[in-house]
Amino acid sequence: MPKITAHDLAKKQKEISVAEFFERNKHILGFGNQTRALITSVKEGVDNGLDACEEASILPEIYVEIKNHEDSECKIIIEDNGPGVIKKQIPHIFGRLLYGSRFHAIRQSRGQQGIGISAVVLYGQLTTGKHAMITSKVEEDRPAFITELAIDTNKNRADVISRDTEHWEKPSGTRVQVSIVADFKRGKKYVYDYLQSTSIVNPHAQITYKEPDGTVHIFERTSENLPRKAVEIKPHPYGVELGTLIKMAKYTKARQLNSFLKTEFSSMGDRTTNAAIEKAGLEKNINPKEMTRDQFLALHKAFNKVKIMAPSTDCLSPIGETLIKRSLKHETQEISPEFIITASRPANVYSGNPFQIEVGLVYGGSLPKEEPVKILRFANRVPLLYQQGGCVITSAISSIDWRRYGLTQPSGKGVPTGPAIFLAHVSSTQIPFTSESKEAISDVSEIENEVKLAFRECARKVQQHIHKKVRRVKTREKFDLITRILPEIAKKSAHMLDKPVPSLDPIITKIMDVVWIEDLIEYEKVDREPVQTTLVEEGVEKPKEGVITKSKIIVVNYKRQPQKFNLYALIPQDAVVGTATPKPAKITDNYIKWSLDTIQPANKVDVVFELAGLEKGDFDENDLYVENINPTFVIGADKWEGD
Amino acid sequence: MPKITAHDLAKKQKEISVAEFFERNKHILGFGNQTRALITSVKEGVDNGLDACEEASILPEIYVEIKNHEDSECKIIIEDNGPGVIKKQIPHIFGRLLYGSRFHAIRQSRGQQGIGISAVVLYGQLTTGKHAMITSKVEEDRPAFITELAIDTNKNRADVISRDTEHWEKPSGTRVQVSIVADFKRGKKYVYDYLQSTSIVNPHAQITYKEPDGTVHIFERTSENLPRKAVEIKPHPYGVELGTLIKMAKYTKARQLNSFLKTEFSSMGDRTTNAAIEKAGLEKNINPKEMTRDQFLALHKAFNKVKIMAPSTDCLSPIGETLIKRSLKHETQEISPEFIITASRPANVYSGNPFQIEVGLVYGGSLPKEEPVKILRFANRVPLLYQQGGCVITSAISSIDWRRYGLTQPSGKGVPTGPAIFLAHVSSTQIPFTSESKEAISDVSEIENEVKLAFRECARKVQQHIHKKVRRVKTREKFDLITRILPEIAKKSAHMLDKPVPSLDPIITKIMDVVWIEDLIEYEKVDREPVQTTLVEEGVEKPKEGVITKSKIIVVNYKRQPQKFNLYALIPQDAVVGTATPKPAKITDNYIKWSLDTIQPANKVDVVFELAGLEKGDFDENDLYVENINPTFVIGADKWEGD
Repeated sequence: MPKITAHDLAKKQKEISVAEFFERNKHILGFGNQTRALITSVKEGVDNGLDACEEASILPEIYVEIKNHEDSECKIIIEDNGPGVIKKQIPHIFGRLLYGSRFHAIRQSRGQQGIGISAVVLYGQLTTGKHAMITSKVEEDRPAFITELAIDTNKNRADVISRDTEHWEKPSGTRVQVSIVADFKRGKKYVYDYLQSTSIVNPHAQITYKEPDGTVHIFERTSENLPRKAVEIKPHPYGVELGTLIKMAKYTKARQLNSFLKTEFSSMGDRTTNAAIEKAGLEKNINPKEMTRDQFLALHKAFNKVKIMAPSTDCLSPIGETLIKRSLKHETQEISPEFIITASRPANVYSGNPFQIEVGLVYGGSLPKEEPVKILRFANRVPLLYQQGGCVITSAISSIDWRRYGLTQPSGKGVPTGPAIFLAHVSSTQIPFTSESKEAISDVSEIENEVKLAFRECARKVQQHIHKKVRRVKTREKFDLITRILPEIAKKSAHMLDKPVPSLDPIITKIMDVVWIEDLIEYEKVDREPVQTTLVEEGVEKPKEGVITKSKIIVVNYKRQPQKFNLYALIPQDAVVGTATPKPAKITDNYIKWSLDTIQPANKVDVVFELAGLEKGDFDENDLYVENINPTFVIGADKWEGD
Repeated sequence: MPKITAHDLAKKQKEISVAEFFERNKHILGFGNQTRALITSVKEGVDNGLDACEEASILPEIYVEIKNHEDSECKIIIEDNGPGVIKKQIPHIFGRLLYGSRFHAIRQSRGQQGIGISAVVLYGQLTTGKHAMITSKVEEDRPAFITELAIDTNKNRADVISRDTEHWEKPSGTRVQVSIVADFKRGKKYVYDYLQSTSIVNPHAQITYKEPDGTVHIFERTSENLPRKAVEIKPHPYGVELGTLIKMAKYTKARQLNSFLKTEFSSMGDRTTNAAIEKAGLEKNINPKEMTRDQFLALHKAFNKVKIMAPSTDCLSPIGETLIKRSLKHETQEISPEFIITASRPANVYSGNPFQIEVGLVYGGSLPKEEPVKILRFANRVPLLYQQGGCVITSAISSIDWRRYGLTQPSGKGVPTGPAIFLAHVSSTQIPFTSESKEAISDVSEIENEVKLAFRECARKVQQHIHKKVRRVKTREKFDLITRILPEIAKKSAHMLDKPVPSLDPIITKIMDVVWIEDLIEYEKVDREPVQTTLVEEGVEKPKEGVITKSKIIVVNYKRQPQKFNLYALIPQDAVVGTATPKPAKITDNYIKWSLDTIQPANKVDVVFELAGLEKGDFDENDLYVENINPTFVIGADKWEGD
């Protein structure tokens, strides 16, 4: 065999276009098999639609249709009512990989890579040889453009095959039609599940889904409020890589170091900027373009020596505990679980990227006892359906010893077995997905840690909950006994002695020696006000049924002394407090506080409050705390530890 | 807030360079944290070196050095003795992502993406701001070139910072020096493990590793033979995507459909080509460039209706059962496991890509009983260290019910717990990695299935092994009893009757009524012949110690009739058979067959054979089979089921 030299090898060296790369590695984009390809296509289309609507502050109305032809060919149609895409950009956005608007913006969004939707077009072309059709309308009084396009994978550029216009009734929007090879029979359940989960964590979106056999599912909008818009922020100096710093300096318009730092980074005010420059031993007014690597290195090190405010979390848009609870309720409708607990962590930062963790936990009921717990994962409000084993959420859960919480787990490691469902949501300006298919989150230690902390908090709440329940049951037994037997004895004794039956309250009080707090929650239906949004067609009213959640708390003093203390009731952040009696001492986003007047022995006080803005069942248990009283003598509330 | 329109959004739309994309998503490339970054850098460098050497049929000599500076900065030096890279190609290969020679070639290689080594350069630049230094020598009598380079991430092109030449003693080779931010303290163990595992499955490679403190580890070459070179093949019609077919037709030089099919695909001879064209209802001589989508669709469908030979497996280079066993032995040196079992599947195809599965299993000894089994994963001879949970190997193992094999596994699913190590190697012309970091294999159903089949085969062998052992132990007890007690009785009886002690063999035979086969394996050290390779410097001999494996099989006829049958001994494929007595009837790659002459009752025959080319312990147990005799009367061998 002749010897192979470097020159021989050089002849084979070639550029690989990114489209060609992904055409070959389609599994990396989530098109590994025909089931997954179906779900990925729907997911990318819907994510795109939701992002577009939210960017333009439009309440999303998404339409998904799947047509199933012979030979496992599916035509997928996804339509949104977003702002549309201008004609010139269509070939780029839909016919080029790595092209988009969200990659360079630091704020929470579903799509960040500029790959998703063009990957669907690429996969369609690869498997069916058919072109994609993009319809887009950007202005109300103009027609919609239709673009038929293919991707030239050798160049990673779109080939526009044809162009046309048509009348479209929507004021604006985008419709993507792609034919792909996919397995609808197997994928059917997953598409439905994905859309359902998406609708639950995006209650402001209306999703209509038409299956190949004509069945239409409508996932109704349950909130008329767009989630808080994630604000674009600048990179934070903590966690910025040295190389990125150098590159930013190369492209900045600032001519002096201090203005460079102040304009290109977040949290850099005058004082912090000067402190960093001083710590680095540099001059304020040097030109960042002329700095040496060593100077950048000094500056980079100085960042971590100066106290810089955490990045603003305006760029994040978490789901919120109420929605998480609702999502879990939905999952467990027929299971009647023992309890649902949620926890949410404050925002944190990894490599300069803000992120936040929210979790939830369902336990008991008819959930299977012999199977690994079900894990529901979400990232930036998108459900993650695959690659559970390779996700940081799973590894964080696996690293907690769940045995003490009644779950089975050999050697205290791994996904526990038992009747529970775990949910975790990661929101971030940049979710570190393990691959372009966005199915699993990479094992970034900061994220892993926060997920662990959140689940530990949940677990603690579970213990508290059980503890409180056990204590209340025990006391209730005692209470029942006393209130049932004592009057009998009193009656009998009175009868025998031929004296009037004495009042027993003081005696009961003596024996019980507690403050007893009980509560009751009721829902009252109300007609919602018609809401004016871009979605409500003119003149058409959309009255919807809403509920008012009424919470009634009964406080009985079974102690021998009069009692005077503060009572706190936790409330969901997104609820609106209505009537509350007695008049609260304080109402915050998270709780209502009452300073209760002196309650005489054997007397009671009713505390009532109403919450609006919730669905039935969102708030189904009071979380009560007391202050200025020894909590060991209180049944039904815990010690207030402060906000 | 002013309304945001499609025109506003269009302004933000931008191309994302692939380098910029990966700079942001460095975790996708395996640089998610500082420990992983270290291992990935070493891995990419070593993989590259091994591929280059093998491509040029040079026995690899790899040098790895890590220097650890302050601030967790590491300088990584990786050197090979491959053919080198010509000057012009250096900026492309090391300074551009998605550029390489192996992407377009269908054959097994470690690197396939054209990303790995330039990703290391990119990561180095990002984290330390320093440039990479590439030294390369392509011809023996020329100096080496040194290129200092950076990557312009906005353009995904190399910036050559400086060029130089130097004298280098090697005849040819490449040296890569990159400074990266990495955690040597944490990564130390993993780098060592990775190099050790690499050396075990690449016994033809010599790897020298110098740690920051000066410690040098040499992983010696244990085989002077390069693995069978993987041959480049053409795509196979089964599994080729419709879109790929259309694209191939667009770029082919063939002007007629039949020559297009014959020249651009593998396994397409005249007959198959004509059959496919006929089934598609097409004409042989139409120009492939002028075909319509429907014609391509017909052709694509026709492929699957015609019987086409499987693709040749020359393009694959599996590890081999001996090396797998050796690798597992190495892992379990101090554990003295009960047994090591291997299994290897025939090659198979997914989406037109040939692949092959080999697995191994170690059981028992002092392996921990309370922990999940250890899983060792390899892809194209590269150990996979991360993302175990997201790998098809893990999901295949998890889907087998291991409880019947003495392992713990709640509900028969998930990674089992118990004293075992599992190993799996996937070799393929294209490993479907879940991401560019090449840490886990995607859940391609064909691969999952083959991994399952391989482990099931292993499990069956485990059961056979246990069964054989139990049976032999039982018979030995009987045998011991007879041979110990009968002579005593005979002696005593003879003494009492004053008669000579009778010969007991016929009686033992009568009671035993079996053919008893026992075996013994010994190793004899020999001096190896000096081997001439490109690596042996002229005039320097490299005598090494080798071993000859001697297997002695004793066959005793404890039946009442004379016995005549065939005996088969399995041998490892890569062993060379030396002396064998009696003269074998047949020797193949897999077994030796003897037609044993009639053995009279109570007589025995010694069967002896020698194997060369193995290390001590590679062959440590005979696997014996018999033919033309009722196997239920044979202890120590099973029924021969044919090749």
